[in-house]
Amino acid sequence: MPFDKLFEEQLDTLKAEGNYRYFADLTRQCGQHPRAKNHHDGETRDVTVWCSNDYLGMGQHPDVVEAMAETARACGTGAGGTRNISGTNHHHLLLERELADLHGKEAALLFTSGYVSNWAALSTLGSRLPNAVILSDALNHASMIEGIRHSRADKVIWKHNDPEDLDRKLARLPANTTKIVAFESVYSMDGDIAPIREIVEVAEKHGAMTYLDEVHAVGMYGPRGGGVAERDGLMDRITLIEGTLGKAFGVMGGYITGSAALCDFIRSFASGFIFTTALPPAVASAATVSIRHLKASEIERAQQRRQVARLRARLDAEGIPHVRNPSHIIPVMVKDPVKCRMLSDYLMDQFGIYVQPINYPTVPKGTERLRFTPGPNHTDADIDRLVEALSSLWRQCALARATA
Amino acid sequence: MPFDKLFEEQLDTLKAEGNYRYFADLTRQCGQHPRAKNHHDGETRDVTVWCSNDYLGMGQHPDVVEAMAETARACGTGAGGTRNISGTNHHHLLLERELADLHGKEAALLFTSGYVSNWAALSTLGSRLPNAVILSDALNHASMIEGIRHSRADKVIWKHNDPEDLDRKLARLPANTTKIVAFESVYSMDGDIAPIREIVEVAEKHGAMTYLDEVHAVGMYGPRGGGVAERDGLMDRITLIEGTLGKAFGVMGGYITGSAALCDFIRSFASGFIFTTALPPAVASAATVSIRHLKASEIERAQQRRQVARLRARLDAEGIPHVRNPSHIIPVMVKDPVKCRMLSDYLMDQFGIYVQPINYPTVPKGTERLRFTPGPNHTDADIDRLVEALSSLWRQCALARATA
Repeated sequence: MPFDKLFEEQLDTLKAEGNYRYFADLTRQCGQHPRAKNHHDGETRDVTVWCSNDYLGMGQHPDVVEAMAETARACGTGAGGTRNISGTNHHHLLLERELADLHGKEAALLFTSGYVSNWAALSTLGSRLPNAVILSDALNHASMIEGIRHSRADKVIWKHNDPEDLDRKLARLPANTTKIVAFESVYSMDGDIAPIREIVEVAEKHGAMTYLDEVHAVGMYGPRGGGVAERDGLMDRITLIEGTLGKAFGVMGGYITGSAALCDFIRSFASGFIFTTALPPAVASAATVSIRHLKASEIERAQQRRQVARLRARLDAEGIPHVRNPSHIIPVMVKDPVKCRMLSDYLMDQFGIYVQPINYPTVPKGTERLRFTPGPNHTDADIDRLVEALSSLWRQCALARATA
Repeated sequence: MPFDKLFEEQLDTLKAEGNYRYFADLTRQCGQHPRAKNHHDGETRDVTVWCSNDYLGMGQHPDVVEAMAETARACGTGAGGTRNISGTNHHHLLLERELADLHGKEAALLFTSGYVSNWAALSTLGSRLPNAVILSDALNHASMIEGIRHSRADKVIWKHNDPEDLDRKLARLPANTTKIVAFESVYSMDGDIAPIREIVEVAEKHGAMTYLDEVHAVGMYGPRGGGVAERDGLMDRITLIEGTLGKAFGVMGGYITGSAALCDFIRSFASGFIFTTALPPAVASAATVSIRHLKASEIERAQQRRQVARLRARLDAEGIPHVRNPSHIIPVMVKDPVKCRMLSDYLMDQFGIYVQPINYPTVPKGTERLRFTPGPNHTDADIDRLVEALSSLWRQCALARATA
């Protein structure tokens, strides 16, 4: 093909750096999570998935699965159009009500993904509000960064999880600016959690809006799964809460919640909302059932917390170094892209354990890691097998142990 | 809410202009397309949908519906992660093979929507290729415009569907630029079709890549539904063909096809591909079945063409003015946002006919229209009823008739 050389040159660079990505080809098996089939070299092997973002296994909950199957049979497979042009299905409205209720807000608005919800909402706020300045946590997700960049609003980056730095930077802004503080609750790759109360207090002091991404928290934190802001009793003080239906809720799609006027504003002006086919009603229906279940059920969250604590304790006992954080995400740092991939390959080939190497650009170069996400369906035996495998690899590869 | 005034001011402007959007709340009923339930003022009424982008009713085809339901039951509701981190399901790979085959290309790459596929592919090509210049048809879709803008590459707009203007503009570019000609086959709102052969010849003459959006054509044009480029025998001369799974294929999602190196390049560098949860396996599976069906079956396409021709002839007989074009899209121009909404409301309230008013920003101000998309499931009686209703409204409102 005439232009292939242009593409291949840049791919060769990625490969030379060890950052080229190989995807694991999986068949998930309903009811078996975290077990799956891995298709590899023409064969199929059983693996235990340790890096799923279906954090609570809700994508295989019988009620959620039935909602998708039944709604497909009742309404068909697609929405039929954009939300404006014949694509608003009643299931979308029911889901938006459910989400508004989850976060204690007047309204919610669906997007095709969490990525699009961040990108569309931030680019619309930044481009349409008068003299907007977006104050962005240094470790915000790519979707927020791209949305802010796309808005062409002024952007100020504040030190990760540092309300004092935010305070200083807000204090420097002119009074006539519209200030938007954008941050996350649980940061996906390090698993640390923002000091939301302090950030909100600083924002309120300066009359700034708050934009909180809870995608790695919804379903899992708070008594009804409303996220860390629910757990900490802060939802009503946050202007906009963004979340996903594709992680703990086990389906796909993204959303924002906030005042009715805010949601109507994004609905009316966001290109990434207006010009795209709506989510299938079967997806909306499955997500609604999943959210309702997790509003009422604490079992999954309690069991997840138990297994997270158990894996941490077992890693400590074996001296496998991992990042200490207050969330469900357990990063084991390798700090080299080639070694990181090698460990992942060994785990898969020798032990049937699947954990994807996390390399650049998902994390900065030099911070490559294996990222484990224990869930309620990982058994104690799964945890023992994982830690034994890691311990054996640490021995084989003469990797450094943590010292107590 | 403290910031609501900021939002309400801009919403008030929209309302004053007649451009505020009211969504019709629908429940689609599998097997009844284009019939649906409309929820309105606490009641439910039966409507015939005349503006669906489920152009062939494939979203309700029994095999497509069963594929979604069965795959949900077999694999669960979600992909479980990004494509890189545990989210590549075997159903994605099967669908990508099906799409590569559909367009006669080496490879394909899935995205969560057609919007994202355009935005991500164009922003990646424009930002990463050396000295990229994107030559964009003046009427390209919002998703392409936003992708080009996001790339920050140089952009040259050429006159809509005018290969001579493209030729002149390509001729002016320095030899060391990477030239990308971006255009659509069927333009959604006017229904006109690009002179693809002439555009490709001009691009080849200047050594430019071609980027063709076929979202309003896949499934419907060409002997296997490969789009207008298939119909015209030009697929192999186009560098990248982009399409959607959310319109004629009846599900959701977007894709690109091209050389293996091109797809690998976008896969490896596009933020909008990398950092987002993959499509549910049930969505991928339903789309695969739909594509396979339309590769082999001409019935839907033939019946769609018949009903499109029939509606045009009946509109002509009644003197209802509509835009003449060679596609399946029939725009009836109203040229006023308030009248356009009023006609739409009358059709719904008095006749149970649903066609959304198409106002700014979907079309330029002053070109407001009703956009009809007849499909194979609209009966001759549906067409008669629609034309009688329009004729009666034209009389009631003293609207101008077309003169033969």
